[in-house]
Amino acid sequence: MASVNPPRGMRDFLPADKARRERVLAVIRERYRAHGFDEIETPVMEDYDRLHAGLGGDNEKLSFSILKRGMDAEAIRAAADDQAALADLGLRYDLTVPLARFYATHRASLPTVFRAIQIAPVWRAERPQKGRYRQFVQCDIDIIGDASARAEAELMTASLDVLDALGLEGGSIRVNDRRVLDAMLDVFGFAPDERPGVLITIDKLDKVGASGVVAELRERGVNAGAVDALAAYLDRPATMPSFDDAGIRAALPSGIPDEVIGHLVALGETVAAARGVDAPLVFDPFLVRGMGYYTGTIFELAHPSVDYSLGGGGRYDGMIGRFLGQQVPAVGFSIGFERIVDLLPDSAAEGERSVVLVHDRDVPLAHLLALKSGLVADGARVRVEQRAKNMKALLERSAADGYGEFATVGVDTTAESLQFRPLS
Amino acid sequence: MASVNPPRGMRDFLPADKARRERVLAVIRERYRAHGFDEIETPVMEDYDRLHAGLGGDNEKLSFSILKRGMDAEAIRAAADDQAALADLGLRYDLTVPLARFYATHRASLPTVFRAIQIAPVWRAERPQKGRYRQFVQCDIDIIGDASARAEAELMTASLDVLDALGLEGGSIRVNDRRVLDAMLDVFGFAPDERPGVLITIDKLDKVGASGVVAELRERGVNAGAVDALAAYLDRPATMPSFDDAGIRAALPSGIPDEVIGHLVALGETVAAARGVDAPLVFDPFLVRGMGYYTGTIFELAHPSVDYSLGGGGRYDGMIGRFLGQQVPAVGFSIGFERIVDLLPDSAAEGERSVVLVHDRDVPLAHLLALKSGLVADGARVRVEQRAKNMKALLERSAADGYGEFATVGVDTTAESLQFRPLS
Repeated sequence: MASVNPPRGMRDFLPADKARRERVLAVIRERYRAHGFDEIETPVMEDYDRLHAGLGGDNEKLSFSILKRGMDAEAIRAAADDQAALADLGLRYDLTVPLARFYATHRASLPTVFRAIQIAPVWRAERPQKGRYRQFVQCDIDIIGDASARAEAELMTASLDVLDALGLEGGSIRVNDRRVLDAMLDVFGFAPDERPGVLITIDKLDKVGASGVVAELRERGVNAGAVDALAAYLDRPATMPSFDDAGIRAALPSGIPDEVIGHLVALGETVAAARGVDAPLVFDPFLVRGMGYYTGTIFELAHPSVDYSLGGGGRYDGMIGRFLGQQVPAVGFSIGFERIVDLLPDSAAEGERSVVLVHDRDVPLAHLLALKSGLVADGARVRVEQRAKNMKALLERSAADGYGEFATVGVDTTAESLQFRPLS
Repeated sequence: MASVNPPRGMRDFLPADKARRERVLAVIRERYRAHGFDEIETPVMEDYDRLHAGLGGDNEKLSFSILKRGMDAEAIRAAADDQAALADLGLRYDLTVPLARFYATHRASLPTVFRAIQIAPVWRAERPQKGRYRQFVQCDIDIIGDASARAEAELMTASLDVLDALGLEGGSIRVNDRRVLDAMLDVFGFAPDERPGVLITIDKLDKVGASGVVAELRERGVNAGAVDALAAYLDRPATMPSFDDAGIRAALPSGIPDEVIGHLVALGETVAAARGVDAPLVFDPFLVRGMGYYTGTIFELAHPSVDYSLGGGGRYDGMIGRFLGQQVPAVGFSIGFERIVDLLPDSAAEGERSVVLVHDRDVPLAHLLALKSGLVADGARVRVEQRAKNMKALLERSAADGYGEFATVGVDTTAESLQFRPLS
């Protein structure tokens, strides 16, 4: 008999976990919807060729592929030297490639500025390790068709509102722009073909510190003068730049285009006005983010309770064009659903009355279900249990499953004579 | 460039469709939860061997398989004569096989009587045709660990309540028992090895009528005397048997075990008591239902507005044992989510205020998002749109997307001076 475990690296969710996940999803869905985003859904599969067109970065290699149906022995043998011939479809590894395909399919039916919510599982055949799964839920919002800072501001405002609604007030957002990075590396003197590699090293700044970044760059033998310029820059006394024109300019070497700084300043002002407080934005000129498709603003959601990010996103103005054959501006944010769910307590739904009816063996079923239905009709959540030898265990189990009260039911019990007692 | 369509037989859902689906799912989830069912989730994939162990009937042949990762040319050539060697996992084709596996994995953490909700997509590589899709959502409830008619009654009561809550009052349930069918075929004189084939023919009664069934059986050359007995029985004047001891006995030939009739009678009384009205149950001694794993009660949900069933289920006491090595009673019901969603009107969420802010180009973003955030904080759903040349089209589009009001925003507009007008 096969193992009864779920497939490697994938999880079952028992009732308490599933209930918590659904509560968090309902908040995310409701808040994003309130901010004018519309939920869409695409199939879990896309064409194999589309998933391997270079838009998914390293995730393409981790894609699960769907075996073609109805292959004969000869077709399989012929595929030995071309594995792609075995698969016609694959499971999505992110929600961005499907969104770009969806937009290309349905553009005529969508608003000029399209604000999309996607809440759905994705699959990656990664080596299983703690906190990393082969199936996990992504929650993405994207705005397609708006090149202005309004788009970034709407993503950020809505996502901070989601954190607030989940009881995670005090969130902030680290912001940078790919064009800032490009311009800085240019100013320091890195050649264009060196820059992608240099960015990969700079991306480790949080982990290895400035000295680690400089050492790695020296080792790799990129332009030594440029590394010296970067090192001197990283060596400046640390300040927390204010998120306005003066603060952003002070954090940067000279030579960064005004247009890029202007976009960031407008973003800061807009988020501050929308939140009615100082903008919870932090300018970080060395924020990189991995995906190759970002073209402008990039950002990460932070919260004081954890030292990892709770989501991130950025502008990817080139990607939709790959599908549509026409450039369309786009910016997206992915909130870290799996991380957020792990942060939240296992509380019952608010204001819900939940009761367990513990009945004697001889209570007629008809009588029992009539009592249950009356309570359900009155708005309660009701579980029926037959009296057990170990009543203590039964009641503890009911409390653990989130029920709040219980009542015993004998043959003579009526709806009026039910006596409820708290379970814990 | 690959086609921009979703994979063959699979659907994208645009905002209006997705919103309707999520509203229906929220009602189903909430009502089943109120009736004491707990939602669980399993991964979309299960081991290939488990999906092909004979528990899925014809669906096993329609399973999508996941290509093994990291196969070399030699391994692929070796798999030419054994396609199963190419796949280690598959996508689930129903929610029953995963539930049985889940129960075997987690039994120690679950209540003695476990009431499960599963709401999730399944995949079948069927030939695409109208109304039949390769990815669709199933909504199952199952009760594991209760052999009494209470279990069936809870499934039926909860599912009728779901229909009511969706505005589909007046649902009814056709009920039979596999043991009734077995006993009837025995009484008529069919040999045990003839019965599965005879049931397949009887299952066509709704489509081809009594004469069609008898003709097909005569053609197939099964026991002629038994076919005559069945024909005589089908030829009786049609009556609608009442769902009680007298009615059920009157609808059946003599020789059906009392225990089976008693289970049905208890079920009828219990559902009637729970619903507080005449039991909306209809006894149909020729209801068959396809799946081979049913062992007792079988039932289908009907509604006067449609001539197809809105869900079905039955008792499958043998299946969990295949995973657990120990018999556990189980009964399940699958409500026809995709069919129900198609029946319901495309109405907006009740009581929700939704507004569109149409702004002039020169309104500062910060001012605009401050206005938006104020309305969101007050409980509205808010979309921001820049004034368009074709305002009529913009407003019609907004109304079609479910928004109810709009206001224009100029540079001097304040929260107090916003003037809302209805969109339609």
